[in-house]
Amino acid sequence: MSNAQETKVTTPLSREGQGNGAPIRVAIVGYGNIGKYALQALQEAPDMEIAGVVRRKGAENCPKELADYKVVKDIDELGKVDVAILATPTRSVEEYAKQYLAKGINTVDSFDIHTQIVDLRRSLDATAKAGNAVSIISAGWDPGSDSVVRTLMESLAPKGISYTNFGPGRSMGHSVCVRSKAGVKDALSMTIPVGEGIHRRMVYVELEDGANLDEVTAAIKADPYFANDETHVFQVDSVDALNDVGHGVNLVRKGVSGQTHNQLFEFNMKINNPALTSQVLVNVARASMRQQPGCYTMIEIPVIDYLPGNREDIIRHLV
Amino acid sequence: MSNAQETKVTTPLSREGQGNGAPIRVAIVGYGNIGKYALQALQEAPDMEIAGVVRRKGAENCPKELADYKVVKDIDELGKVDVAILATPTRSVEEYAKQYLAKGINTVDSFDIHTQIVDLRRSLDATAKAGNAVSIISAGWDPGSDSVVRTLMESLAPKGISYTNFGPGRSMGHSVCVRSKAGVKDALSMTIPVGEGIHRRMVYVELEDGANLDEVTAAIKADPYFANDETHVFQVDSVDALNDVGHGVNLVRKGVSGQTHNQLFEFNMKINNPALTSQVLVNVARASMRQQPGCYTMIEIPVIDYLPGNREDIIRHLV
Repeated sequence: MSNAQETKVTTPLSREGQGNGAPIRVAIVGYGNIGKYALQALQEAPDMEIAGVVRRKGAENCPKELADYKVVKDIDELGKVDVAILATPTRSVEEYAKQYLAKGINTVDSFDIHTQIVDLRRSLDATAKAGNAVSIISAGWDPGSDSVVRTLMESLAPKGISYTNFGPGRSMGHSVCVRSKAGVKDALSMTIPVGEGIHRRMVYVELEDGANLDEVTAAIKADPYFANDETHVFQVDSVDALNDVGHGVNLVRKGVSGQTHNQLFEFNMKINNPALTSQVLVNVARASMRQQPGCYTMIEIPVIDYLPGNREDIIRHLV
Repeated sequence: MSNAQETKVTTPLSREGQGNGAPIRVAIVGYGNIGKYALQALQEAPDMEIAGVVRRKGAENCPKELADYKVVKDIDELGKVDVAILATPTRSVEEYAKQYLAKGINTVDSFDIHTQIVDLRRSLDATAKAGNAVSIISAGWDPGSDSVVRTLMESLAPKGISYTNFGPGRSMGHSVCVRSKAGVKDALSMTIPVGEGIHRRMVYVELEDGANLDEVTAAIKADPYFANDETHVFQVDSVDALNDVGHGVNLVRKGVSGQTHNQLFEFNMKINNPALTSQVLVNVARASMRQQPGCYTMIEIPVIDYLPGNREDIIRHLV
């Protein structure tokens, strides 16, 4: 990106809009559940252009909704790319991000292992600055938009307790984790809120022939994704028959503003999970064009940067 | 502020904390309801020092909780001041802000006339840049923290409808407005939600001798604060006897993420109004130390900047 410096500085010009008015060219990397929904969100984004899709198999067995787009194995085949949406498994994020950031391409992802976010941010911050690019990590709804609400609530009542209650709903991160275990053909992990931020995990697995349920169960329970929660694993004939991507959150904080107690805050959502995750990825792709080189989480980005359009119009409409 | 340039740039150093570790010196300007609660919030802020209070009457008839603080008529008597919290009536904000920004002192306020925010931002942006200072305007809970939630919700479902339902609770801005009318000794304006963002205003007035209720009612209904809402004005013997500063909000959005409909979002609060407003003012005072010179609304500031402490610790804790 030869004009990276020009488009990323937060000068008065770029603060008032995209600056040059050219659409943001975005590539989707990985075409699973999130990739599919990201395509839809990009089709609706007024300020973006789909540069193409990067898949391991390239154009081979290409889903029909990609007929009008370039589908390639290597991002270099897509011409100028401003931002790569990493719709890959969480554990591949760092590798892809480093490769693209080094080329000067911004990256956004939904890396969802809470305990490793600070390390990933440090690692990608160095690569991003060296490549004069921007990376926004852990951008989904949790971590992601919920993180913004949690941070805002904590600022509104600095003393107090917050609880994040998820579900009932399928956790994509947890489901992908289970699918990676030996002997598992397909899996679905349901998150059940049991109150005060405590969750039960209900895991449904379709096993490969000869796989042993006890061994699979032990492998799942030992994984950091599951180690801290009550987890039940069930074998089913068809995971697909259980599949519903609806999800929810109930985020509450009760605390003290200044010296005044009993301040009550609550945020609720009932949403299609991959649709929301993908919308957030598109929002941070846009925001990445408005930051200085480096790596950021969503709480480090002004929320106005997630929206297209003129800044004063947004302020008039939403402040 | 001789070190303004050094402390305000968003370099990696200041991004990781306050940088020099010195407490932020904050002055409270105006000592009504908000000023009193701002004092409490500042007393609880681990990274701030109360430079003093600026009142029109100076130390005359000084409330006893100010005994340990400098109370003056002119901010220049307070020594170095990093940020002035303008706890003045909304209509005086611009005048005070311009005066202090020109001296290189950051200002924060809760300016709450929604239709005039863009104009105020433009006007103070020029003064702030000239004075190498930062101004954060319209920082209360609405406009303010609700604006952050509204903007976030709009980004999560770009197509759809949001409703902000206030109350039941006293509106400080509306009450101050009524008190400014000729013939009004004291007043309280209650906001009653009637659904879908429509509100009724219940106004209770204590009149001065000889004042005419019909004339006062007409003056209230003609004011831009009330012109668009169903408004009822009642004369009472004692406004003080009705006074309760509890308030609430119910902010909802139903919309479309990407191409997926029926995405549901909701934010609720039940809060002590001036306590929350003052906490927000203290938060933006802190955030003002981390921005480039200029004027901002809260949606233009990363939420992480509202919190004290080390950035990586905050990310570890809240993302």
